[in-house]
Amino acid sequence: MERLYNDDSLALHTDLYQINMAQTYWKDGFHNQKSVFEVYFRKLPFGNGYAIFAGLERVIQYINNFHFSDTDIDYLREQGYEEEYLNYLKGLRFTGTLRSLKEGELVFPNEPILRIEAPLAEAQLIETPILNIINFQTLIATKAARIKQVVGDDTTLEFGTRRAQEMDAAIWGTRAAYIAGFNGTSNVRAGKLFGIPIAGTHAHSLVQAYIDEYLAFTKYAESHKDCVFLVDTYDTLKSGVPNAIRVAKEQGDKINFKGIRLDSGDLAYLSKEARKMLDEAGFKNTKISASNDLDEETIMNLKAQGAKIDTWGIGTKLITAFDQPALGAVYKLVSIEGKDGEMVDTIKISANPEKVSTPGLKKVYRIINRNNGKSEGDYIALETEEPQNEERLKMFHPVHTFISKFVTNFEARELHHTIFQNGILVYDLPSIQEIRENVIENLELLWDEYKRPLNPEEYPVDLSQKCWDNKMTRIAEIKEKTHKMMKQKK
Amino acid sequence: MERLYNDDSLALHTDLYQINMAQTYWKDGFHNQKSVFEVYFRKLPFGNGYAIFAGLERVIQYINNFHFSDTDIDYLREQGYEEEYLNYLKGLRFTGTLRSLKEGELVFPNEPILRIEAPLAEAQLIETPILNIINFQTLIATKAARIKQVVGDDTTLEFGTRRAQEMDAAIWGTRAAYIAGFNGTSNVRAGKLFGIPIAGTHAHSLVQAYIDEYLAFTKYAESHKDCVFLVDTYDTLKSGVPNAIRVAKEQGDKINFKGIRLDSGDLAYLSKEARKMLDEAGFKNTKISASNDLDEETIMNLKAQGAKIDTWGIGTKLITAFDQPALGAVYKLVSIEGKDGEMVDTIKISANPEKVSTPGLKKVYRIINRNNGKSEGDYIALETEEPQNEERLKMFHPVHTFISKFVTNFEARELHHTIFQNGILVYDLPSIQEIRENVIENLELLWDEYKRPLNPEEYPVDLSQKCWDNKMTRIAEIKEKTHKMMKQKK
Repeated sequence: MERLYNDDSLALHTDLYQINMAQTYWKDGFHNQKSVFEVYFRKLPFGNGYAIFAGLERVIQYINNFHFSDTDIDYLREQGYEEEYLNYLKGLRFTGTLRSLKEGELVFPNEPILRIEAPLAEAQLIETPILNIINFQTLIATKAARIKQVVGDDTTLEFGTRRAQEMDAAIWGTRAAYIAGFNGTSNVRAGKLFGIPIAGTHAHSLVQAYIDEYLAFTKYAESHKDCVFLVDTYDTLKSGVPNAIRVAKEQGDKINFKGIRLDSGDLAYLSKEARKMLDEAGFKNTKISASNDLDEETIMNLKAQGAKIDTWGIGTKLITAFDQPALGAVYKLVSIEGKDGEMVDTIKISANPEKVSTPGLKKVYRIINRNNGKSEGDYIALETEEPQNEERLKMFHPVHTFISKFVTNFEARELHHTIFQNGILVYDLPSIQEIRENVIENLELLWDEYKRPLNPEEYPVDLSQKCWDNKMTRIAEIKEKTHKMMKQKK
Repeated sequence: MERLYNDDSLALHTDLYQINMAQTYWKDGFHNQKSVFEVYFRKLPFGNGYAIFAGLERVIQYINNFHFSDTDIDYLREQGYEEEYLNYLKGLRFTGTLRSLKEGELVFPNEPILRIEAPLAEAQLIETPILNIINFQTLIATKAARIKQVVGDDTTLEFGTRRAQEMDAAIWGTRAAYIAGFNGTSNVRAGKLFGIPIAGTHAHSLVQAYIDEYLAFTKYAESHKDCVFLVDTYDTLKSGVPNAIRVAKEQGDKINFKGIRLDSGDLAYLSKEARKMLDEAGFKNTKISASNDLDEETIMNLKAQGAKIDTWGIGTKLITAFDQPALGAVYKLVSIEGKDGEMVDTIKISANPEKVSTPGLKKVYRIINRNNGKSEGDYIALETEEPQNEERLKMFHPVHTFISKFVTNFEARELHHTIFQNGILVYDLPSIQEIRENVIENLELLWDEYKRPLNPEEYPVDLSQKCWDNKMTRIAEIKEKTHKMMKQKK
């Protein structure tokens, strides 16, 4: 397997154009200009009313370890890059400042999740992996939160490793699900790496290996104190549940008969019948867990049918975000230091109005009404503004500007935290348990109307007047310039 | 970042139930029984007529390195596993025999992709990661092949890293796409690890950083011989294309002006207009590349509209297999050595008929008609059968058994190759270029009717008479047993 490298750094885990652009900047002596990039997405996934940010832990790991290894440099040399540029890359570390939402923070369209202030070439090189990490982990945390919304206090377990999109997705996806409220995972490595509770009993193959289902359950009981029997290998109601009950009775106090698991067939019908059989046999405290292509919609339907399911094992539909397997967060330059040393706000224009970026160094605030403890919306202001000091805040829709309101008696809670300061990690990552608890608190700030899974209200994400004016000015400047250019041509 | 381990092996990258079942087998002295498992999927993805197998390289890496590390064992100890069992796990390596299709082989529903003959506990522990790897990589290779089917000889590039489901998906996904005929990737690390050609020029941020588009293109041209300019940062036809042409004219022979890239807006209209502008300026040999949520359907539509696009950059829709982001391959026990040392074929029954497994140690053959060089279908036979020695082969549909045909003058090409023999890697992995060429040859065996992206014909995957009889016998046995059990209860 000579294709593996011992020093495989992630510095090359980027799009080639980043390395090409960095070369242009370097050659032009422009690579160390101060730049500001923002990460944001334009549209919430799954028609949900909010997203839950996840991915910061891995972003921190990535940036902390950022460097080109010897074999990385060798590879780039083979591609024809010149030695001086390679020398520059060889010594490169991240020296910028990164501000970010905390993991588990609620996030909405068009607001900066991360803000990167760094020498231009550095900021450019780290774009691709940051998006790769954040897009996926935020997507899965959000999907998990939707499922959590429907199951209420039932236990939810992440069972999707076999269907995940390769190994990283399995472990970082299950971490995202746990942050958003899931109770555990079947992936043992995720348990080890992140301290997530692990769950699982046996598969159909145990029953097949012993051929006889009763024998298989007995053998399992003889080797495990806690027993959940998977009852659908041959016939759930005729064989599986009766064998589970028989073994539980025979073993008595030697085991904790915790319940059964259903993995196929009509889960509504089977769970109700199995519940009756277990209750009649005196096992009223046992739980029924179910799995088989479940998601928030099937769960809601099963509940509506009175299914007797206590624990939900969620695989494919969660770990791949099956109904929308990608989040579209982007990384846009919002400000750049000119050669004269002055910062200039930048914009990307597009034929699609929603793709026009918002220029300038900005902060994002959650505006919390002190009268009821609920959020009035998010407010994006320029770095220099101080909305927290205003008595009366005007909030208006950044597209339909006539939709507006005034808020008083509010707290303007800044959502960004400094993670790296001039290349130094200054942030103390909370434990996964803290992150998980924060999610619950964060969701409590939101009215229920923003949280329902179907057709939620649109949560306001507004620009300050100055921020909005700055954007309009930049658009006018670009249009003016293009117009001039066309006139010159004629 | 104390949560990272230097010795993070992948042995724990498995479902907890595997470790629990292995414990039951070990405690019962059943863990070294010879077992046979098969990997197969039941349904083709995307409504395609075939799938392309990918994932073997990583499966080999995984099995070759399979061991529980010290911290793995520590973690399991914390979970309460007993010391003797942990000692057993500590010394565990894969000692079995693995047979597999070659990467790049065409594969169809219900035929064994991999066949694992190994001590029961070993075979069980490696199930989850094998599925995790194969499900994803096969899915992406198949999606890429569909796109390839539509673009014909146009160049296709994989651009999806930022939207991939975490890092492994980005690199192994792009490898799968390359196998299936893609021409390159933007992911530099994938280029380094797998020898895939890398591609990319610059992003919008280059233009934003220099504020002035003409200046940005000029700077890029001054630092790169080959130039493709991204023309949609401000206004494609009014600013981007004219600036590209101006810079190309000014730079003359100093650069290779290879063309432009479009990344937003109406690609059909813009590409046709840009083509005219380039041609009129004398740049008839330049190419137009396009990206923006493309897949086989949008590409077919763009071609129908006469879009002038030469190179397709495919991101999200390919790397996440957006329209069906999971393949459902399973890993089923088909035979087990009883305590008496005799092999017994096993089956999993299900209320869903398509979920009933096919018992027994089997081989899979592609039946190639020597008269026309085309495949008549695949034929699954028991290990002991020798279809290649038959003059006249009866092939019949395993569900609608009346659908049948006789084939003569055929080659029965066995599709499995031995990868590990008693734990030793005996297979020489072909180069990625060879795998890629094999795909082309493999596809040539198929009639076009199986290859069209929409509503392809169903390719025959048949069971031999003996294999089919064996399955029916096992089903009857289980039914008889369940019936007896019910009678005893009453």
